[in-house]
Amino acid sequence: MIKVSVLGYGTVGSGVVEILRENHDIIQKRVGEELQLKYVLDLRDFPGDPVEQVLVHDFQIIADDPEVQIVVETMGGLHPAYEFVKTCLERGKSVCTSNKALVAAYGPELLELAKSRNANFLFEASVGGGIPIIRPLKTSLAPDEIQEISGILNGTTNYILTKMTEEGLDFDTVLKDAQEKGYAEKDPTADVEGYDACRKIAILTSLAYGKQLDFEDIYTEGITKITKRDIAYGKKLGGKIKIFGSSRKIGDKVSAMVAPALIDAQHPLYSVDGVFNAILVKGNMVGDVMFYGQGAGKLATASAVVSDVMDCSKHVNVNINTLWDAEKLDLVPMEDARSKFFVRVSGAPEENREKVTAAFGSVQPVDGGYGDEYAFVTEEITEGAYEKAAREVGNVINKIRVQM
Amino acid sequence: MIKVSVLGYGTVGSGVVEILRENHDIIQKRVGEELQLKYVLDLRDFPGDPVEQVLVHDFQIIADDPEVQIVVETMGGLHPAYEFVKTCLERGKSVCTSNKALVAAYGPELLELAKSRNANFLFEASVGGGIPIIRPLKTSLAPDEIQEISGILNGTTNYILTKMTEEGLDFDTVLKDAQEKGYAEKDPTADVEGYDACRKIAILTSLAYGKQLDFEDIYTEGITKITKRDIAYGKKLGGKIKIFGSSRKIGDKVSAMVAPALIDAQHPLYSVDGVFNAILVKGNMVGDVMFYGQGAGKLATASAVVSDVMDCSKHVNVNINTLWDAEKLDLVPMEDARSKFFVRVSGAPEENREKVTAAFGSVQPVDGGYGDEYAFVTEEITEGAYEKAAREVGNVINKIRVQM
Repeated sequence: MIKVSVLGYGTVGSGVVEILRENHDIIQKRVGEELQLKYVLDLRDFPGDPVEQVLVHDFQIIADDPEVQIVVETMGGLHPAYEFVKTCLERGKSVCTSNKALVAAYGPELLELAKSRNANFLFEASVGGGIPIIRPLKTSLAPDEIQEISGILNGTTNYILTKMTEEGLDFDTVLKDAQEKGYAEKDPTADVEGYDACRKIAILTSLAYGKQLDFEDIYTEGITKITKRDIAYGKKLGGKIKIFGSSRKIGDKVSAMVAPALIDAQHPLYSVDGVFNAILVKGNMVGDVMFYGQGAGKLATASAVVSDVMDCSKHVNVNINTLWDAEKLDLVPMEDARSKFFVRVSGAPEENREKVTAAFGSVQPVDGGYGDEYAFVTEEITEGAYEKAAREVGNVINKIRVQM
Repeated sequence: MIKVSVLGYGTVGSGVVEILRENHDIIQKRVGEELQLKYVLDLRDFPGDPVEQVLVHDFQIIADDPEVQIVVETMGGLHPAYEFVKTCLERGKSVCTSNKALVAAYGPELLELAKSRNANFLFEASVGGGIPIIRPLKTSLAPDEIQEISGILNGTTNYILTKMTEEGLDFDTVLKDAQEKGYAEKDPTADVEGYDACRKIAILTSLAYGKQLDFEDIYTEGITKITKRDIAYGKKLGGKIKIFGSSRKIGDKVSAMVAPALIDAQHPLYSVDGVFNAILVKGNMVGDVMFYGQGAGKLATASAVVSDVMDCSKHVNVNINTLWDAEKLDLVPMEDARSKFFVRVSGAPEENREKVTAAFGSVQPVDGGYGDEYAFVTEEITEGAYEKAAREVGNVINKIRVQM
């Protein structure tokens, strides 16, 4: 029998408890041993909930119990999650977490610590919720040099963009609707500004290349500036606007960003709509591989956590090696990253032609039918070249990177 | 250093050799040890190919060499692949294969043998080519009771259906084009009759439930009877025709089949076109998860094989337990499986109304504009009920199961 404890009885933590109970027999059969929930840590009480029988308020009880071999961390936030996880690993307990902030900030250190104790630190649920991506990246795609990762990594923003696209609504209206439906938080900043996706692409990229990509170093642009007009132009151009966390290998360096992108129906992520997430990985041998599913949600995310618990159960005192050094990944400076750009400018094409041509070269005007503006798509240029040209033109309303 | 040998220097085998060479450094770093190719077995000679240095014509050399720890079987066919694999496993060598026929026919026996020798028998490449599906099913989805698997498991038939749909061509014309492009074999039977997909869904279903599903027991219907008119009706109904290998848990039994299906844009596999494959798995906790990529092709398939080789390298003398007993899975009899059916009948709706209503209940006629026939979609009924009703009606031209 393997004894498990859960830190944090919130959405994901209670989902983990539910799966361990509901799928008890299947899990036991597949692990070859029974998994028993010994403690659940939470500051709150849950009168009437069966969890009461195993509920503790003091982390030390779990830390000090040598019977507890596997600890699930579903508290979220950096502190005290970091201190608790560290203590568990130091005492040779394996830890499975859904906490992307913790993994993005302390991944290499906690992996190293786990290794030194022949324990494991696993975090499948930290990216893509229920979508298997961390383990496939470490195992199934291990023969490949990863050339590119593009992910729709945040369900809230994908829901908002989908709804804006399908119903022609503006950002504020859809955000309100998403908040009412529980798809967006009361304070939606982490989602709509791209910070959540940023931590996730930092984790995936660090794993793909085995070195640390600090999320603070990733250029991050959210969806708050996307308007009904942007969406309408996108449709006119045969595309859709999505927000990607992406990274790409360029020589010995890696370029990474979080930003909206205009894509067309040829793109494998084109039909990933609503709250679903998907991650496209391009390997130098396997080509394009895509993983799709529920990027959030209690049971989907908890299922990913439990898959890690089962992996730990099959690797007692055996470290599953994860290459992710503290050494920093060499990033391509943002001004050298290359894209095509969709650009909206105020005024009419004939007024702007001379300066636009001087700045961007010859471009094809797209009439949105608004009378006071038009748009065009540039050739592939660097971010630096785009910024310079946009400054020269002066009357740019908005720009979106284009993958089509 | 871990010594590897490859049986069969055909498309996939030569791809494996290429990946072991081209991605040598990445693979060594990720395994933590060097993988060295010791022998390649093939009856042919390859003058001028670097493989000459390791080429052998006699399997016994590989079988008898205790240094060879991992054997890749990419010969295809049942014999002598089965005998060779068995010999290797008996001698404690791990085997990684891309051979779906071998796995579908002898999976439980070879897994049992591997286990008894603390070796491994892995077969990621046997389903979905480069798409990670076998390993995710065994690990990432392990907490879940699998409720349903639906896969576009064969690139040839997906290419043919896509081309028929996009260009309004008939089956024979597109098959010829596919053969010229190398997407279909000279003898296309195994693909177009669904036999290839049948073996693959047999493997996936056996793994999902841990018991043997014999491919001979799976109802299998290919795409040779799909006509331009079927495709045109499908479009009119807002759908596309795809061929799925699928299985579904119904109570304590499982229903499985290979057959064309009419699906609409809401279906996660709707936009999987051309030679691409994708597999949708529904778990009772994780919900819908989809895996997408190149279902065939030299390097994509070889990448899956090499991922298995790397897994074996990290599990020397440690069996990775795979639940797949020889005991037979309880199948729902085909006549009890339930679907909605798209049905084409000759004549006009008014001539047929009485007998169609008597047989299928009240249905909405769909006019294809052909003058000599029309179509309708039934409610969800059993296969048995469909067959009975179709016999009663008498003048059915074709039927396709509907998932929309």
